[in-house]
Amino acid sequence: MRFRLKIEYDGSAYNGWQIQNGQLTVQGEIERVLKQIFSEHIGIVGAGRTDTGVHARGQVAHFDLEYQKDPEKLLRSLNGILKTDIRIKDISLVNSNFHARYSAKLREYHYCISPQPTALLRDYSWHLTYNLDLKRMNRAAKGLTGRNDFTSFCRTKAEVNNHFCHIKKAQWHKKNDLIIFIIQADRFLHGMVRALVGTFVDVGRSKLNVADINDILRDKNRSLASQSAPARGLILEKVYY
Amino acid sequence: MRFRLKIEYDGSAYNGWQIQNGQLTVQGEIERVLKQIFSEHIGIVGAGRTDTGVHARGQVAHFDLEYQKDPEKLLRSLNGILKTDIRIKDISLVNSNFHARYSAKLREYHYCISPQPTALLRDYSWHLTYNLDLKRMNRAAKGLTGRNDFTSFCRTKAEVNNHFCHIKKAQWHKKNDLIIFIIQADRFLHGMVRALVGTFVDVGRSKLNVADINDILRDKNRSLASQSAPARGLILEKVYY
Repeated sequence: MRFRLKIEYDGSAYNGWQIQNGQLTVQGEIERVLKQIFSEHIGIVGAGRTDTGVHARGQVAHFDLEYQKDPEKLLRSLNGILKTDIRIKDISLVNSNFHARYSAKLREYHYCISPQPTALLRDYSWHLTYNLDLKRMNRAAKGLTGRNDFTSFCRTKAEVNNHFCHIKKAQWHKKNDLIIFIIQADRFLHGMVRALVGTFVDVGRSKLNVADINDILRDKNRSLASQSAPARGLILEKVYY
Repeated sequence: MRFRLKIEYDGSAYNGWQIQNGQLTVQGEIERVLKQIFSEHIGIVGAGRTDTGVHARGQVAHFDLEYQKDPEKLLRSLNGILKTDIRIKDISLVNSNFHARYSAKLREYHYCISPQPTALLRDYSWHLTYNLDLKRMNRAAKGLTGRNDFTSFCRTKAEVNNHFCHIKKAQWHKKNDLIIFIIQADRFLHGMVRALVGTFVDVGRSKLNVADINDILRDKNRSLASQSAPARGLILEKVYY
């Protein structure tokens, strides 16, 4: 029996999604609670590994059980034990060829910038007082769509060999008092969205030119991109299958 | 010199807005920081007293200084010392006949209900799994608009004599995955919005009839209204002058 979970979490207290020795992680917390319920280790597979401090509204994961279990009851058990900064929003039974990571077609991240000081979104946004020119930022963002090598926007210690990502959408929006960046891609490298946001912000405040983004991309050198935007503004919004 | 402040706060850690002996309050925190800056007591007057655990996105307050001070610098000083769950969003110099409380024409509160379990809004919403019929709730809400005596929706220990409030707007909306109640009135009694929300929810899940709301209002008896909705879903959104 394969179960598919939709998970929302406030990443503030966690060292990211993925289990690491001795660290508090979201995956580790959910597996700890599954062990408490089933008295055995049950490994879960997530659609994407979010970094330390990054949030999720629509993380997807799956796990297998060797016997039947009512999804509704399981949802209540999990949410009853988990701390309130991790919530299971949905559990369903899926076909065993569904794989949270490999079946995912597209991941969507949002990044939130608050031009005003904010108390309510202090853990979910980046407060920036610069005047940002969204038109410039959107022209730069448009230059990234399609399939490109994102070595320049990837943590240098990242262990993957393939740095190609296909960006389907990259847009800056105004939404009430906030500025939101929406990006969709088939895959993301470690630290990629935050490096992109930091660089777009430098375009928006005219520290960089619009065309610089493409030069940075072409040179495949992380030191050319700007400083990363803080983790707290980033959220894994949705995974498409 | 009279200064007008626009304040956003996360009320989770506070015993409401108003100063009370020995308790942590939002007004108390801001006055503590003003004293730190000016080395003297400076009292502030807020537009509305929010209860324990209630939030604000648009609280307004004023205070007087006997000498000039640049509002921009003062804003930075205040936000530099205040904890991050209270943010001053704006400071401006105003005419001395402006009064945060008495000049206010209308206050607007929002109440947020989340039908889904939520980690990110756990401190800012009420998670309810009942099926709520918003049409019924809106018919009941419409019956409250105009000038009425809200004794039935007021904390019995509230010390005011006048229980009349003029409701300009009372509407339930769907907004993405959330259910939002928007209410505007010239004034609100203690615990009033939360008592109303609790009662509307009972109409929405058919524990009460639409017409019951008007009967409860007419009987001027708090014990007839439903249990109050939790404070964490309530936010003072805006004050109109």
